[in-house]
Amino acid sequence: MAEAQEARKFSGELLQPPRGMRDYPPAEAALRQRIVDAVRAEFERYGFEPLDTPALENWEILSSKYAGGEEIIKETYSLTDLGNRRLGLRFDLTVPLCRFLAANPRVPLPFKRFQIGAVWRDGPVKLGRYREFWQADADTVGAENGLADAEMVALACGVFQSLGLNAVVRVSNRKILDGVLECCGVEREKRLAAMLSIDKLEKIGENGVEKELIEERGLPIPVAKKLLAALSVDEGVSNGEKLARMAGSVADSREGRKGLKELEEVLGYCTALGAADRVVFSPSLARGLNYYTGTVFEVFLAGGGITSSVAAGGRYDELIGLFSGRRLPAVGISFGVDVVAEALKQARAPAPEGVAGGVCKVFMVPVNNPAECLPALQELRREGVAAAIDLMGRSVGKNMEYAAKQGIPFAAVVGEKELKAGKINLRNLETGEEKLVTAAEAARIVALARR
Amino acid sequence: MAEAQEARKFSGELLQPPRGMRDYPPAEAALRQRIVDAVRAEFERYGFEPLDTPALENWEILSSKYAGGEEIIKETYSLTDLGNRRLGLRFDLTVPLCRFLAANPRVPLPFKRFQIGAVWRDGPVKLGRYREFWQADADTVGAENGLADAEMVALACGVFQSLGLNAVVRVSNRKILDGVLECCGVEREKRLAAMLSIDKLEKIGENGVEKELIEERGLPIPVAKKLLAALSVDEGVSNGEKLARMAGSVADSREGRKGLKELEEVLGYCTALGAADRVVFSPSLARGLNYYTGTVFEVFLAGGGITSSVAAGGRYDELIGLFSGRRLPAVGISFGVDVVAEALKQARAPAPEGVAGGVCKVFMVPVNNPAECLPALQELRREGVAAAIDLMGRSVGKNMEYAAKQGIPFAAVVGEKELKAGKINLRNLETGEEKLVTAAEAARIVALARR
Repeated sequence: MAEAQEARKFSGELLQPPRGMRDYPPAEAALRQRIVDAVRAEFERYGFEPLDTPALENWEILSSKYAGGEEIIKETYSLTDLGNRRLGLRFDLTVPLCRFLAANPRVPLPFKRFQIGAVWRDGPVKLGRYREFWQADADTVGAENGLADAEMVALACGVFQSLGLNAVVRVSNRKILDGVLECCGVEREKRLAAMLSIDKLEKIGENGVEKELIEERGLPIPVAKKLLAALSVDEGVSNGEKLARMAGSVADSREGRKGLKELEEVLGYCTALGAADRVVFSPSLARGLNYYTGTVFEVFLAGGGITSSVAAGGRYDELIGLFSGRRLPAVGISFGVDVVAEALKQARAPAPEGVAGGVCKVFMVPVNNPAECLPALQELRREGVAAAIDLMGRSVGKNMEYAAKQGIPFAAVVGEKELKAGKINLRNLETGEEKLVTAAEAARIVALARR
Repeated sequence: MAEAQEARKFSGELLQPPRGMRDYPPAEAALRQRIVDAVRAEFERYGFEPLDTPALENWEILSSKYAGGEEIIKETYSLTDLGNRRLGLRFDLTVPLCRFLAANPRVPLPFKRFQIGAVWRDGPVKLGRYREFWQADADTVGAENGLADAEMVALACGVFQSLGLNAVVRVSNRKILDGVLECCGVEREKRLAAMLSIDKLEKIGENGVEKELIEERGLPIPVAKKLLAALSVDEGVSNGEKLARMAGSVADSREGRKGLKELEEVLGYCTALGAADRVVFSPSLARGLNYYTGTVFEVFLAGGGITSSVAAGGRYDELIGLFSGRRLPAVGISFGVDVVAEALKQARAPAPEGVAGGVCKVFMVPVNNPAECLPALQELRREGVAAAIDLMGRSVGKNMEYAAKQGIPFAAVVGEKELKAGKINLRNLETGEEKLVTAAEAARIVALARR
């Protein structure tokens, strides 16, 4: 039969998502949604407005030298539409923002926008690294004030607090590192490369960085040693003490002193915003992207197995101007939705084997005629409870089995007795506890049960 | 200067989204988000679980003859990745569901999933028709029970009620129309074409359809006339009377009688689910897609300028089986997010010229030192109020102007007096009303103000 042959053709690899991409079955999709909801709620609380742009952009925009650069454009999915226009899938959410601002020069400033969605990069597939992944970005465009920077830091703290994760924000200012490099006598043209090595301090340690600075970046041995000494600060020391210490290290650099002043302002605003206890000044923080001009920060989780940053950002006062032709200072933050999902998975107790654990909270099991149970079902739903009902005419036992397999935490058995009482028999499928309750009471019980 | 030249290169069309696509600036994005939130809330209330799949699919899957068919594949964006695999952007959310089910044969049944996201079709660009558009789908897979169909109808009613739109669901069953065609003597091979003409009854009227049936579909004149007479039912008549009337029209068709029985069951469940008053049996409803096998429905809005359907769906018991090699009965619904957005825009009073009207609700205006206002700002945000603050050091007047231009409904002026009182001066920017209130009081006032 042709159908069977065609079906067989689909077996195996073809039925999987394209290489480097993945399906999010219910438990995974619900987890990602929870993160997106938490991030969006915080973005909105801070007065950011949503902006949505298409997944596809004109190729000329994506491949501009002011966009992501050569490395990224090599990994950009490209296609030609029926009208013979070359398009590409966006590789980040910053380039679309730049394009939007260039196309809409009359948008009132500051423009505080957020965007949450997929981006695509046809790069090497590694553990935890996919070719379709989600970003959640907020940017404040048009404001030079350090309060805008501090808001990014504070909202990051808010997001992870609402997710129950213990986050630390490492903060610095590009100009400080610039100043230290200048004061240590690193030649201007070697500074960017040196920064990239210094950025690895956490990962490869002081000896590793020293070796790289000398052998790969070509710094004289005494310069490399002086640099590392200037940057090494005791982690236990307060931000204020670190600022005082760095003031000595950048004393001879105008740029460095400016960076310190900017950072002091940002840290002051962080305190006023109630985020000071989560913020750590890290002089060696450089961030990989070379478009940052001032504040830089990276968010890490304390404890747990996730060592990469879960969110990061900084001030980039020149990029949009290069792109749109008018200078627009900006500061932004980007959350790695997939990394945060990984952290949440590790932070909570593993779900029992084979259990999905999604959004549905109550599974209604009719003892006799399902139609008689529907008013109670609708009442549950009106009370805001995610509820499903048997659609297979299964026995009570089989239905309980299905509900458990689906990870639905409660069953509501409805027979003669319940119908007469106008109630449901709510059973906690984990503890086995049963209670005859109204829909409103059930809603309260379900809301109180742990997620 | 090279930068200026490059910037100039971007002027005009290139800065716009690719042809047929669009940006959603804040007001538009917030409106779409409101719809997505309403649909998702209802999907979840009905116990559907989220499933997310990648935007890209393997080309062999998209171009399978069981997927969208020749017309759609012509309009599918196609590309080749660096590993030389041919991929395509999904043109709907049904094919990814079929692929997922084929790849995961052990998923417990019924599988109730929803998916909300963009789909892409490189088709003709018309008013209200874009090449990237959003769909919101829910499907119940593995259940043959009419209750599953009725849940789709009831949840559609719930979505539009929560959005404040007046919806009517036209319902029928493919088998009834099949039966009528059989009983009127339409040859089997002409039935699908005849159905497509009958589907236009609302649009081109009885005379138009009669003409098409005779001239284009090749039906003998008496057959066409008999068919239209059998299908013409007074709109004012109750669903029960229509069922009785159609029972006569399909008396000689086993298929037709079966369809009527199925529809009666579905309508009965709709009543039990509390959705009966919104449901109208429309015997001429066929739906364009030929994979429907039973229940079909389309949702229309009463009043307003939107005449196309805002949601639609039906039962398709064979499609997934053809695709995955095992029979899986299914019923689904798809909301046209963009059409609903259009309807909501028409339903509400137009926003004043130039006003964005997004999610930010309070704009804080410091009279002196902004840092002193930050505790009050954070309190507002903790109370769940979307709030921003001046980042430009502007005068009170300029700040008011900015807030009004942004469509932010309230300003919070904070000077000496307010700081001493531990309150904010909340000003309604539409009415001019002012009130000295705590953050918690402000949150209540903002929540009560109309959106």
